[in-house]
Amino acid sequence: MASITDPAAISRAGAPATSVAPGKALVFIGFMGSGKTTTATEVAARLRVTALDSDRLIEERLGHSVAEEFALHGEDAFRAKEEVLVCDLLANAGPGEVIALGGGSVLSERVREALKPHLTVLLDVAVDDAWKRVGEASAMDSVDGELAERPLARDRNAFDALYASRQEIYLGLADAILPAASRRAPYRPTGSEDPGVAVRALPALRALAGATRPSTRLLWASARSGEYPVVIASGLLGESDGGAAALGDLWPLERSRSRPFLVTDEIVGRLYGARLGAQAASIAIAPGEGAKTLRSAERVWRELAAAGMTRADHVVALGGGVVGDLAGFCAAGYQRGVPVVHVPTTLVAQVDSAYGGKTGVDLPEAKNYVGIYHQPAGVVVDPDTLDTLPAAELAAGWVEVLKTALIAGGRLWECVEAGGEVDEWTILACARTKLAIVAEDERDGGRRQALNLGHTVGHAIETATGYARYRHGEAVGLGLLAALRLSGQDALRARVRELLLARGLPATLADAGAEVEEIVAATARDKKRIGANVPFVLLAEPGEARIGCEVDGRELRAAVEELGR
Amino acid sequence: MASITDPAAISRAGAPATSVAPGKALVFIGFMGSGKTTTATEVAARLRVTALDSDRLIEERLGHSVAEEFALHGEDAFRAKEEVLVCDLLANAGPGEVIALGGGSVLSERVREALKPHLTVLLDVAVDDAWKRVGEASAMDSVDGELAERPLARDRNAFDALYASRQEIYLGLADAILPAASRRAPYRPTGSEDPGVAVRALPALRALAGATRPSTRLLWASARSGEYPVVIASGLLGESDGGAAALGDLWPLERSRSRPFLVTDEIVGRLYGARLGAQAASIAIAPGEGAKTLRSAERVWRELAAAGMTRADHVVALGGGVVGDLAGFCAAGYQRGVPVVHVPTTLVAQVDSAYGGKTGVDLPEAKNYVGIYHQPAGVVVDPDTLDTLPAAELAAGWVEVLKTALIAGGRLWECVEAGGEVDEWTILACARTKLAIVAEDERDGGRRQALNLGHTVGHAIETATGYARYRHGEAVGLGLLAALRLSGQDALRARVRELLLARGLPATLADAGAEVEEIVAATARDKKRIGANVPFVLLAEPGEARIGCEVDGRELRAAVEELGR
Repeated sequence: MASITDPAAISRAGAPATSVAPGKALVFIGFMGSGKTTTATEVAARLRVTALDSDRLIEERLGHSVAEEFALHGEDAFRAKEEVLVCDLLANAGPGEVIALGGGSVLSERVREALKPHLTVLLDVAVDDAWKRVGEASAMDSVDGELAERPLARDRNAFDALYASRQEIYLGLADAILPAASRRAPYRPTGSEDPGVAVRALPALRALAGATRPSTRLLWASARSGEYPVVIASGLLGESDGGAAALGDLWPLERSRSRPFLVTDEIVGRLYGARLGAQAASIAIAPGEGAKTLRSAERVWRELAAAGMTRADHVVALGGGVVGDLAGFCAAGYQRGVPVVHVPTTLVAQVDSAYGGKTGVDLPEAKNYVGIYHQPAGVVVDPDTLDTLPAAELAAGWVEVLKTALIAGGRLWECVEAGGEVDEWTILACARTKLAIVAEDERDGGRRQALNLGHTVGHAIETATGYARYRHGEAVGLGLLAALRLSGQDALRARVRELLLARGLPATLADAGAEVEEIVAATARDKKRIGANVPFVLLAEPGEARIGCEVDGRELRAAVEELGR
Repeated sequence: MASITDPAAISRAGAPATSVAPGKALVFIGFMGSGKTTTATEVAARLRVTALDSDRLIEERLGHSVAEEFALHGEDAFRAKEEVLVCDLLANAGPGEVIALGGGSVLSERVREALKPHLTVLLDVAVDDAWKRVGEASAMDSVDGELAERPLARDRNAFDALYASRQEIYLGLADAILPAASRRAPYRPTGSEDPGVAVRALPALRALAGATRPSTRLLWASARSGEYPVVIASGLLGESDGGAAALGDLWPLERSRSRPFLVTDEIVGRLYGARLGAQAASIAIAPGEGAKTLRSAERVWRELAAAGMTRADHVVALGGGVVGDLAGFCAAGYQRGVPVVHVPTTLVAQVDSAYGGKTGVDLPEAKNYVGIYHQPAGVVVDPDTLDTLPAAELAAGWVEVLKTALIAGGRLWECVEAGGEVDEWTILACARTKLAIVAEDERDGGRRQALNLGHTVGHAIETATGYARYRHGEAVGLGLLAALRLSGQDALRARVRELLLARGLPATLADAGAEVEEIVAATARDKKRIGANVPFVLLAEPGEARIGCEVDGRELRAAVEELGR
């Protein structure tokens, strides 16, 4: 049985193959400017097939361009013809065929239905990038073989509205979400061959196409020091339907030489350890933040060494944020680095900490003071594991959902503000938000600092209270209230307060009188501090985080004091 | 007083300036194909001056090409005219002028003399690259504005001989040695501005030009995850002539916000700690390999945290290999990474361990089992510090010189084989060798493994004898003998044995009978092991290391047994 946690399977790209999976075609969807034609052409070349492009096929049949068809007969007439052609194309698509669909074709219910038997891959482009690329393509008449005339890209406001409406449809349809084509490997050896992301992701797409669980989703994560697949599906770790066997199907490549070494905590290990298949070793730490120490790391390192782990092997981190941070740190430092596959089982880990490569342990002096950036080799998420999480843990973890929604804005914030429950969609949306930020800035040099929203005061509350009184999420919830006060967002602060209270989370400091000074002092020791100033993340509105803000000492004290009321 | 260990001064590149240093011109020398014209043009543009190119100026005066001059009047006539022009050019060169010299001009003693007042920068190109580039330039008639016709590049054997003879002259003249122009930053953000190495090195060159100590040399180190200056000069840490003040002159840029946090050992700290100028904190560990533990690392991390170190600050590692590995590891892990400046004070550290970014600590199970790659922000080498090193330490450290010479071959091996003493030239040559290898392969994926020559059995000897009986260098010396036996190099093994004995180093195992099995078993636990095999580095001849060699178990046992005779 193949292991899910096989980093060779995860990271090796570009082995030629004649088919993606039996009976399935690989269908690229996405907004105009996402590079569907370019990507499909490159992937098809790698698979030694010919790419099919619905827009080109239509133009061939029409005998004129899509733009001319719009002008002559209007969009509705075009859509009707497109629906017939695309449905025909998908119904007759053979296994391993590679197809690029026109951006608007998925407006048709019949087309969406026809996509179901195939592997649908969204090329995810940001609206600004899409507008820029479409503009460039028009200016040059033709770029990368894509259609140059875009009848729907003449007005920026209309373009943005169209993007917003289409993007939700694409996300609903996609089995896999990849960054749009022009995002090449962010850092690469000068002069090296440079295949596009879809080619690099082919082994993962192939594995996904063979997955037995139909709702399995793949997100492709990209950061300066590495890229990796994130797989999300409820029941992936389920016992009833084969457990690890179902997981194994996700990575059907040949058995690698890499052996998995499990690091987990005693509780999670007992619940889910056996479902990951055979492990070369299994190391269980005590549950809770108290285990995130150098002493625990030393124990893990010594056990890995005693078990004979080599550089060809890999760590599997099964558990919450503490296990992920500790096991990631141990993987990063073991023999100067071995791969780690994260299998997050708590809400905090599934929506936030498993992604982005931050690893580390606490010092008695401060939280997360020792650590390393080490991007995972893969992340495997089963939201069903949240069912075994204590309610208080789940509530505390939800604060990271709240934080991510405030940073992301848009539909994620709408859902969270409406008090919606956390489901697979929410987890995927949070993961997408975090991964998009990390893709731009792996090492907290800029935009990634936005993820620290609420954490500056949050960490200070944890430090000042000896990490004992509040859960991390609870402290961050209080930190978010302080950050919103500092942002001058009183109405938003009131709504966030309601949301916290509705989940049974603290919205006030239990014993504020004695603590305000300690919390203010601990804030000044924040490790984001550069010289004398602690840069704050403030919020102009949901979706508009501002990093590196200076905050007056009196305002900070007032914001912390307000938490006592 | 500016600190020498100011990473902002070290790493910030490209601030425009009108002059490099008062009275000094920046003169690029190097073999044909090293990109002198391209580099000088780019640097001059950055400095807002016009680059002067001696070959072009000669052609202007002659009214025809250098190749035509060779054909019409022969090389001697050309060299005579070149000497006059270049001497004139250098004598009248104003401060901040940027000059590219014809590759052969430095054959003239008068030219070499005329270079002395200026900052001479060698663009160091490998002979294969030079041949390739010259060939490409000829094929295209003109590349990057360099002269296309190369009268001395018509025959590969003659080209190689010319390269060998010229390279020694260049190295003797160079104040700074940079990788040749086309080596761009090895990993870079896609689409970013991409200045050449000389532009990136400008702040360091400017600092070097202002250095009061005339013999100060700068090597520019480049690796996948970073690049940094290496500064070598006897007396840099000397007390008599100002010590730290002399060092401070090396980095005359504006005072940065980055504060230095010293990590050293108790002996070295007492000898040289005060010469580095004021430090924000000073942490001294016990001397010796015994201190290279997670416990020491934890102590350092906690003291850095207690002293209020932030991400804008940096670590200064003053000492030998143990201090460098430990302090580098602590820098890599402190708040997920702060810069480290290495100030190596032992021979092992000056010729080997301070370069290349390997950091780490030992586990009881095995040496260097926990660590991180973390390239330094700079390395500052004062060979005079070796004077205070115990003779046995110096001898043990010399084994790394021997190893490096076996890997490098050429003139370095000739000097070492002839029993030459270790001087500044030797240290520079070893540093160049190691840096060239790390530039190609930072993470032991390929060529860097060559540096492991003699270390597989060497580490096993240390492990089997509890790190107590042999110094690291002594064990590696024995390991080199085993590697040469496995390489079938009996004559070379005999010579290396003589060299070891001449320095009072062990050439036999003291108590071999009991240890052979333990050493063979420890070899099998080597952390380079991939699956079942331990890849060996063998030597075809000096300069020709072969990595990833399979070695038969019986041969290995025989090679270890031979150490007992």
